[in-house]
Amino acid sequence: MPPMTLTGVYAPVPTPFNHDDQVDIARIRTSFARWLTTRLTGFVVLGTNGEAGLLDDEESDLVIETVRALVPRERTLIAGTGRESTQATIRACKRAAQLGADAVLVRTPSFFKSRMTDAALIHHYTAVADGSTAPVLLYNFSTATGVNLSPAAVQTLSEHPNIVGMKESGSDIAHIADLVAMTPVDFPILAGSATTFYAALCAGVSGGILALAALLPEPCVRLFELARADSATPRDEARALQRKLLPIARMISAQYGVAGLKAALALTGIDVGIPRPPLMLPDRSAIHAMRDALSTFEEVTV
Amino acid sequence: MPPMTLTGVYAPVPTPFNHDDQVDIARIRTSFARWLTTRLTGFVVLGTNGEAGLLDDEESDLVIETVRALVPRERTLIAGTGRESTQATIRACKRAAQLGADAVLVRTPSFFKSRMTDAALIHHYTAVADGSTAPVLLYNFSTATGVNLSPAAVQTLSEHPNIVGMKESGSDIAHIADLVAMTPVDFPILAGSATTFYAALCAGVSGGILALAALLPEPCVRLFELARADSATPRDEARALQRKLLPIARMISAQYGVAGLKAALALTGIDVGIPRPPLMLPDRSAIHAMRDALSTFEEVTV
Amino acid sequence: MPPMTLTGVYAPVPTPFNHDDQVDIARIRTSFARWLTTRLTGFVVLGTNGEAGLLDDEESDLVIETVRALVPRERTLIAGTGRESTQATIRACKRAAQLGADAVLVRTPSFFKSRMTDAALIHHYTAVADGSTAPVLLYNFSTATGVNLSPAAVQTLSEHPNIVGMKESGSDIAHIADLVAMTPVDFPILAGSATTFYAALCAGVSGGILALAALLPEPCVRLFELARADSATPRDEARALQRKLLPIARMISAQYGVAGLKAALALTGIDVGIPRPPLMLPDRSAIHAMRDALSTFEEVTV
Amino acid sequence: MPPMTLTGVYAPVPTPFNHDDQVDIARIRTSFARWLTTRLTGFVVLGTNGEAGLLDDEESDLVIETVRALVPRERTLIAGTGRESTQATIRACKRAAQLGADAVLVRTPSFFKSRMTDAALIHHYTAVADGSTAPVLLYNFSTATGVNLSPAAVQTLSEHPNIVGMKESGSDIAHIADLVAMTPVDFPILAGSATTFYAALCAGVSGGILALAALLPEPCVRLFELARADSATPRDEARALQRKLLPIARMISAQYGVAGLKAALALTGIDVGIPRPPLMLPDRSAIHAMRDALSTFEEVTV
Repeated sequence: MPPMTLTGVYAPVPTPFNHDDQVDIARIRTSFARWLTTRLTGFVVLGTNGEAGLLDDEESDLVIETVRALVPRERTLIAGTGRESTQATIRACKRAAQLGADAVLVRTPSFFKSRMTDAALIHHYTAVADGSTAPVLLYNFSTATGVNLSPAAVQTLSEHPNIVGMKESGSDIAHIADLVAMTPVDFPILAGSATTFYAALCAGVSGGILALAALLPEPCVRLFELARADSATPRDEARALQRKLLPIARMISAQYGVAGLKAALALTGIDVGIPRPPLMLPDRSAIHAMRDALSTFEEVTV
Repeated sequence: MPPMTLTGVYAPVPTPFNHDDQVDIARIRTSFARWLTTRLTGFVVLGTNGEAGLLDDEESDLVIETVRALVPRERTLIAGTGRESTQATIRACKRAAQLGADAVLVRTPSFFKSRMTDAALIHHYTAVADGSTAPVLLYNFSTATGVNLSPAAVQTLSEHPNIVGMKESGSDIAHIADLVAMTPVDFPILAGSATTFYAALCAGVSGGILALAALLPEPCVRLFELARADSATPRDEARALQRKLLPIARMISAQYGVAGLKAALALTGIDVGIPRPPLMLPDRSAIHAMRDALSTFEEVTV
Repeated sequence: MPPMTLTGVYAPVPTPFNHDDQVDIARIRTSFARWLTTRLTGFVVLGTNGEAGLLDDEESDLVIETVRALVPRERTLIAGTGRESTQATIRACKRAAQLGADAVLVRTPSFFKSRMTDAALIHHYTAVADGSTAPVLLYNFSTATGVNLSPAAVQTLSEHPNIVGMKESGSDIAHIADLVAMTPVDFPILAGSATTFYAALCAGVSGGILALAALLPEPCVRLFELARADSATPRDEARALQRKLLPIARMISAQYGVAGLKAALALTGIDVGIPRPPLMLPDRSAIHAMRDALSTFEEVTV
Repeated sequence: MPPMTLTGVYAPVPTPFNHDDQVDIARIRTSFARWLTTRLTGFVVLGTNGEAGLLDDEESDLVIETVRALVPRERTLIAGTGRESTQATIRACKRAAQLGADAVLVRTPSFFKSRMTDAALIHHYTAVADGSTAPVLLYNFSTATGVNLSPAAVQTLSEHPNIVGMKESGSDIAHIADLVAMTPVDFPILAGSATTFYAALCAGVSGGILALAALLPEPCVRLFELARADSATPRDEARALQRKLLPIARMISAQYGVAGLKAALALTGIDVGIPRPPLMLPDRSAIHAMRDALSTFEEVTV
């Protein structure tokens, strides 16, 4: 197998649930029918925005299997397979590989957050990468987990042949610059924060896995292209586009989260159902605010 | 069934794993043989110190079943059944009741910590208490989860007939005093922090669920009795005992966690095996420090 | 001079300003006329609640001089003299001694908070204690300063002959218990948080310097006495009194601060003017909330 | 007077002290002799790195007066004049204007950090800008002060005719992008964090006030120029230069602070004496680490 070269914009898609709180296969199909018309490089299922922590193993497998049948091989399909124990994580990685995922995205364990030292995380990820039959992407999301995978630990782990990249969800640009600088040139760092995507591209990331890309795929792809373009003019456009994306990016991340993303997708005609309890739908004022923010984009009809 | 009146000192016990990373039934039996000789009021299995987040459902059921067969009815057996989704939590509560648990201890969900508002938590715990066939104890452990169950939410939830008490693991005494003041007199608040157990008893808690009680049961029971005694003399003794407990209490909570508790238990002759990866055994210097701290207690031979 | 034995309840009093933003001597006199009728052990001028950071040296001297003329020798008068530089702190201590302060209360420097290591703080306080002609009290207020004076540093400093005690404004009872345990029996630790005063007394502090004592002196003194009394009955009364004090204690500390204290004092007939800008008066709803909280105390007419 | 257009790179210079802990005029002169040979746009005296909080008013005036006599009119001289009270801040601004400062940089008050709401800060800065006879720059440094001046407050304040720009010391790029977007095009936002200078320039800041610029003026100016240049090639060079600057930038900010900057300057032959207590000189290992970091720059001989 040739090495993966993860670059471009990926959408971490929500998992649809119906009103009986069950995974909704029909809605997976209709939503992907829309996403496959876009220029997105690939998709992540069972990420944080896939409500991964709220699904059991059987449901998780069903999601991967269903989506793989829809997503053609030329688009990358990544599956979130992080679990709290090392052995459960390895089992999840193997099942995802079996079901056709091109790579697995492994969030840091966090149940015992204060014990997740560099040594423990290096041990964990090494065992996972040894055991996984799919290429492994590290996944650091400190705001959500309370755990931080340090640049030094990433440097060590980037040498493992089955660890092929990293998603960093934080918006600390100096931290991102460190990750870029301390890993090999062909080890992709993917940004996870849409609010600082342009700055992260300036700092050298090779792409992004952005919840915003499920909602506004074209502007996200455009921002990626502008950052790569070869003159100063695009820079002003990129900066302006990043600013324009800021309000809605904040709403579907820090402010309203996954439930906000689902409600916002519904506003654009993509019905991915409701969040699973204990998550609750955002209230009416949140939905109004998101509608207002979305209405500034001509790409969407709200 | 008469209402539960949870008072006294409970030990949240570790789950033994063998060197193949499997639940170790033999070690469960030998460790309980020791704990049942103490004056502890009861036990908690599958709490944070039971590495609950690292076990799957089948293993969890096995632990409850095994321990229930050992613990006589006059000692309370509580099972941790918190899961991230509301529906999975309800299922876990029902299974625990079926397997003989006297009550269930339900940790706040935390995968989507920023969305765990009072409204979401009230909704979650109400659904859980409605669905559970065992009495429910709320469980707030902000340091570990990043989620806080506010006194106002607890006040609302304390009115539910199937919610019979709460474990508060924080050491903020003003917060604990609020919980005591805002709930009915017969709604027990149980302290979870051994470092402030005496102060929490001063503030009105009815007992404690303390990792330290698995390690030093008699001193913890003694501290509880002193706090209840009717003269000023015990107060000096209580304060002195609390101070004496501080160093080792810190080591097995903030400093080394569950892995530290397991290593410390081994020093006192209770073998509960090793922690499950990604948890790692504490290093030699940590074990020396715990040995030194334990050697100040004549109750233990280290 | 015999060693100081600081025990009991002290009020850190606000500095009155008039509508021209000047120190208001007349209001100092009328407010002390009231405070001197209470059973308070002593007073602190130029503490945090005295808006110390907003006064220049000349104004500070004027306050000490004025108050000393009012407070009889049998009540302890303590002056806040913390400055950011070591040399300025020493000068302020000397002037306070000259003007009649019985002791000085020296807040940790905080302009360079990240550099205030134990070593730097030990160096600073040693130089201050060497240079000060008044006995020195350490003063740790991490919430306000972002600096923490560790128990280990306090242990070292408690050996200095001119350091005679400490005010700890935090409410972390385990931290307070450490301070009590790690310092000599005759080295007083004074609580600074009224919300946890009873718990701190349980943990062994010798008294309190409480903003609440300027507002509700008798309940604070009563709580102190109850905590010292020799039977279990007072314990229930103490706990009930502590709970009753919680809401108003929170309002004049975390919630509305010094400006809240000034407004609350006005409600009880003690006019200490307005806060100095950039501090602003609390709004009408805050004042209503404080009035409601105060109206539960028969001692005050609001 | 024409409006100021602050763009480019400014150095916030340390205040030299001699071994008697006094301001050292001779060292001010020799250090500026060096800095005036560089391409720096201007200088800030009495900023955080000028140990402003440790100087009294008389010393502060002396520094401004001395430096103004050295710095020609075509280089901008900015003086830090933030004080805790509004009235003291206004007085400091007037004196700085009188002594020849081109503008004043006013740090947020922080003694009562929890009370520094947007309303209080808008009130404060409006009064200061009304009263100051020099143009005012806002200065937000949350890490050091614990206070945050929100983009909404800055938007309001940017309309004041005597508020001509802002220094934002944080490295949160989304926050910086908000500041740029919510203020007029001719209202300069200046970065204060060298670790994210390039990303901040990508996000639209007009320049920087960087401690690093006192130590490595040419690389900082070069980075500024590269970010402005009109092709993709400079982007790679800019990114590489930013990465190269990261280690030393971290050392003289988060890691060792002002004392580290003074020691690092000494390594490059600029003697600005020692820090004022309670600040302490960094230890030998810190100095070695800085020497190593500096030796990667051919511009400096260490």
